[in-house]
Amino acid sequence: MASLLRTASLARPSISRSIARPAPRIFTSTILQRNYASAERSFFPDEPEAPVVKTPIPGPKSTKVIERLSKVFDTRSLNMVAEYPKSIGNYIADPDGNVLLDVYAQIASIPVGYNNPSLLLAAQSPEMTSAIINRPALGNFPQHDWADILETGILKVAPKGLNQVFTGQSGSDANELAYKAAFMWKRQQERGGAGVDFSEQEISSAMNNNSPGAPGLSILSFRKAFHGRLFGSLSTTRSKPIHKLDIPAFDWPQAPFPACKYPLDQYAEENQAEEQRCLAETERLIKEWHNPPAAIIVEPIQSEGGDNHASPNFFRGLREITRKHNVLFIVDEVQTGVGATGKFWAHEHWGLQDPPDMVTFSKKAQTAGYYFGNNELKPNKPYRQFNTWMGDPARALLFRAIIEEIERHDLVRNTAVTGQYLYEGLENLAERYPKEIANLRGKGQGTFIAWDSPRRDEVLKLAKGHGINIGGSGEMAVRLRPMLIFQKHHADLLLEKLEKIFKS
Amino acid sequence: MASLLRTASLARPSISRSIARPAPRIFTSTILQRNYASAERSFFPDEPEAPVVKTPIPGPKSTKVIERLSKVFDTRSLNMVAEYPKSIGNYIADPDGNVLLDVYAQIASIPVGYNNPSLLLAAQSPEMTSAIINRPALGNFPQHDWADILETGILKVAPKGLNQVFTGQSGSDANELAYKAAFMWKRQQERGGAGVDFSEQEISSAMNNNSPGAPGLSILSFRKAFHGRLFGSLSTTRSKPIHKLDIPAFDWPQAPFPACKYPLDQYAEENQAEEQRCLAETERLIKEWHNPPAAIIVEPIQSEGGDNHASPNFFRGLREITRKHNVLFIVDEVQTGVGATGKFWAHEHWGLQDPPDMVTFSKKAQTAGYYFGNNELKPNKPYRQFNTWMGDPARALLFRAIIEEIERHDLVRNTAVTGQYLYEGLENLAERYPKEIANLRGKGQGTFIAWDSPRRDEVLKLAKGHGINIGGSGEMAVRLRPMLIFQKHHADLLLEKLEKIFKS
Repeated sequence: MASLLRTASLARPSISRSIARPAPRIFTSTILQRNYASAERSFFPDEPEAPVVKTPIPGPKSTKVIERLSKVFDTRSLNMVAEYPKSIGNYIADPDGNVLLDVYAQIASIPVGYNNPSLLLAAQSPEMTSAIINRPALGNFPQHDWADILETGILKVAPKGLNQVFTGQSGSDANELAYKAAFMWKRQQERGGAGVDFSEQEISSAMNNNSPGAPGLSILSFRKAFHGRLFGSLSTTRSKPIHKLDIPAFDWPQAPFPACKYPLDQYAEENQAEEQRCLAETERLIKEWHNPPAAIIVEPIQSEGGDNHASPNFFRGLREITRKHNVLFIVDEVQTGVGATGKFWAHEHWGLQDPPDMVTFSKKAQTAGYYFGNNELKPNKPYRQFNTWMGDPARALLFRAIIEEIERHDLVRNTAVTGQYLYEGLENLAERYPKEIANLRGKGQGTFIAWDSPRRDEVLKLAKGHGINIGGSGEMAVRLRPMLIFQKHHADLLLEKLEKIFKS
Repeated sequence: MASLLRTASLARPSISRSIARPAPRIFTSTILQRNYASAERSFFPDEPEAPVVKTPIPGPKSTKVIERLSKVFDTRSLNMVAEYPKSIGNYIADPDGNVLLDVYAQIASIPVGYNNPSLLLAAQSPEMTSAIINRPALGNFPQHDWADILETGILKVAPKGLNQVFTGQSGSDANELAYKAAFMWKRQQERGGAGVDFSEQEISSAMNNNSPGAPGLSILSFRKAFHGRLFGSLSTTRSKPIHKLDIPAFDWPQAPFPACKYPLDQYAEENQAEEQRCLAETERLIKEWHNPPAAIIVEPIQSEGGDNHASPNFFRGLREITRKHNVLFIVDEVQTGVGATGKFWAHEHWGLQDPPDMVTFSKKAQTAGYYFGNNELKPNKPYRQFNTWMGDPARALLFRAIIEEIERHDLVRNTAVTGQYLYEGLENLAERYPKEIANLRGKGQGTFIAWDSPRRDEVLKLAKGHGINIGGSGEMAVRLRPMLIFQKHHADLLLEKLEKIFKS
C-alpha cells in the first residue's frame, strides 16, 4: 500500500477536480489510487471540490474587518478572519471569497464540519432554544430532563469504568475542577474518611489561605504539558514561557516527559529506556516533592507542547505508579478526545486494565468537564464542588448531536482509516522531502499527526496561499488537526498542496 | 408614600388575583395603592396571576426526576427541579405543576424573564444557530462580524471610561483573566516598560513556577468577598469555609470589609469611622504585604458573603488609595451588574471621577469578561492573554438581545422604581415583624435587597410552600434577586406571601 501510494503521490496533478468529475479510466496505479479516494461518498456533498484562493490572505475585505476589530479587540494573534455562514464541512471561508481546506479546525475544536446539517437541526430545536434563553444554575435548579440529556449524550461516550460526570465550561475549567476533586479526596483520606469533619484549625486557616485548611498539596504534571491557562491549570502547564510569564504559580512539581525518537516502533528500545527514566523520576517526585502530589495529570499526546508521543507502556507505568502511591491519575483528553486519534478517547490505545481516575474533556465535545467512576471522588458535602452554571445544557445538547453524527457516519473509524492513509502519504513525502518533514509522528493515532519543520512558520504561511489552513505546535511542529469528517480525498488534496509548498 | 404603603400592606387579601380582574372601586387608600400596582402594564401578559402550589416541593414527579438524576449527577445542592419550557417571565415551573414566583432567578443570572419572546427570536436567528454550530477560536479566527457584535452589544453598555473588553466564559474566568492582565501590567512596569523584553532568568524561572518569572505578587480582596471558585479567584474568595476547604491557595492578603450598620444613612457617622478603619488597613496591606498586590478587587455589594453594603465614600476611598499606590482597582460586577441595582452597573452609584481600571461581568450578561480602558492593560505581546474559545459569540448575541430588551422596556429604571416600592413595603413589614426582618438593606439599590433572619433557612423553605422561590446569602441573610422585569404587582405578591410566612 505504501509503495502504491508513493507512485500515486509522484503524479498528483489535479486530484481535487477529479472528486466531482469522473476521472478518465486510465489504468495506471496512480489513477487507480486516485479513484479509490475520490470514489468515496463525501459526508458533505456540497463541499467545494478544492480550495479557492482569490486574494492574498488577508485580502482587502478582511483587512478592513481587522482594522475595525483592532479598535476593540486584540487582533495580534489573529490568523485569518472567517465567514462562518459561508464555510462548509472541511472548508473555512473568509470575507474575500477565499475558501480553505481547514486542517486546524479552530484549534482542534470543530468535530463534524462547519454548518453540519444535523447540528443545525439540533441548534434549531425547541430544546436548544430553551437552553439558550433559560440557562439554569444546574446545581440548584436542574431541568427536568437533565439526566436524560446526560445519559443520551455526555455519559453515552463515558470512558470505560467512569460512569459519572461533572460538567464545566472549558478545558482549563475542566482540569481545575478535577484538581479540586483530587485535593478534596486526598485531604479526606488524610483526615480519616468522609465522616470526619473539618477541624477548627482547618476552617480558620482555610479562610486565611494557609495550611492545613488550604493544604500544601500539589498536582504533578510533565515538562511541555499544556493543561490550560487559569491559575491552577497554568501551574501545571509547562509548554512555553509566553503562556506563563508574569503570572504567579503554585510550587508544584514537573516530571520529564519522554523525549522519544520517531517513528516510535523503530526506536522501541531507546524509547523504552527513556520512558523508564521518566517513570522513575515521576515516582521520585511523588515520594519526595515538598508539596506532595494529590494527582498527576498527563495528555495522551502532548499537543500544544509540540505533539510529543510516548508508548502505551509509559502510560500504563504511570497508572501503576499512581496506584502504588495512592495518587490520582488524571488524563487530559481536552485535545485528544472525541475521536481524533482513531479511538473515541486516546487513552483507549493504552490497554489499561485499571481505568484512569478522571478524564477531562472539552474542545470537540463543545462542552467540558471530567468523568469519574469512584464515588470517593464525590466531595463528602454539597456545595464543595459547585458554581453558578456548572456547565451548559445548550452545549450538552450540541455534544449529544455530535455524538449521534459520529455514530451515524462511523466517524471514529473514518478517522482511523483516513489517518492511516494520510500517514502513509506523509511517510512518502518525508522520504522525498527529508528536509521538510522530520520526526513524522502519529502512526496509528488517527489524523492526530505532526512532524517537525525547520521552516515551520513559513510553511504555515505558504499553506494559506495554497488554500490550506494548518496549525503549528511547540517550537517547530506542523500539527494536523482535521475534523472527523476528513476523508481520503481531502488527504490527497492536502498531500498535493504540501508537495507544492515543499517544492516552492 | 411609606405611610400609604403601610396602610396598604396591612390588608392585602388577594392582590394577586386583582391583577387580571379589575378591583371594585372602593376609595380607600389601601385599594388605591393596590390599583396603582395592578394597573401597570405587565411585561409578560401571559404570566400567571399568582403562584400555583399543587404539591409539596419536591412533589412525586420531581422526586422521581431527582432519584434518576442522583445516579449520574450530584443532587445534594439541588433546590428544586425546574421545567423551563413551562416557566414564564418571573415564574418558574416544576414537573408537578407548581409555578413559583422566582425572586432568586438562577442565582441572580436570569435578566429578562423565562422564555422571553425577544430572546427566543434571537435564539432562533440564523446568526445564533451559526454561532452555536460553528464556535470559533476567537483569538485566531474571529468571525467577520465580531466587531459589530461587540459594538452593538457588550461594548454598547461598557462602563464609562472603559471602551475595550476581553471576553470569557464565567464569573470566575472573568476575574482570573483580569488578575492576569493586572500581573502582566505590574511586571511590565517593574521591568521598565512594554519595550523591555523578558530576561533569561524570568523565562527559565517561569517554566519552573518560580520567581521572578512567576512573581510573588498578589491580588488583595476583602473579608467575606466572593470572586469565584477556580484557583486564583478562590484565593480572593473569603465568603465561607465550604468554598475554600482543602483547596491550595495563594498567600494573598485580605482587608476588612466595613461591617456597616443598617440603614446606612441612619448610622452614617459610625459607618464612616468603620469605613475609614478599613481603608487604612487596606492601605497598610498594600504597602506592607510580603507579596505586593498588583490589584485590589471588590464587589459593589458583597453578595454571596451576606449582602454587605458600604457607602460610595468607601469605594471612592479605594479608588484614591489604589491610584496613590499604583495598584489597579478591579470592580467585580458579576452579581451586581446589568441593572439589578437600579443602575446598569452598580459602581455608577459611587460618582467616581476616575473610573475603575477593570470591571468584570457575567451572570445576567449571560456571557462574561472584563472591561478596561487603559491601553497599558493590553499585554505587550500576542498570545499572553489567550485561550481556545476566548468567550462565545452565541452568548454575546444573547447579551445583545438582553440589552435591547432592557432598553426597549426601560428596565433599569423599572428596577429602580420597583426596588424603591419593594423596599418601602419591606420597611413596613420590618416594623411590624421586627423578629423576622433585621438589618434591612439595599435602599436605593434597585431590587438588590436583603435582610437578616434568625430562622433564615426555615423562611426559605416555607416560602416554597407559599409559591415563592427565594435565596439566601451569607450565614443569615435572605437575599432578593428578582429579574429586571419584576414589577410592583410582583412586589405586592411577594410582600403578601412574606407576611403569611412571618405569621406562620
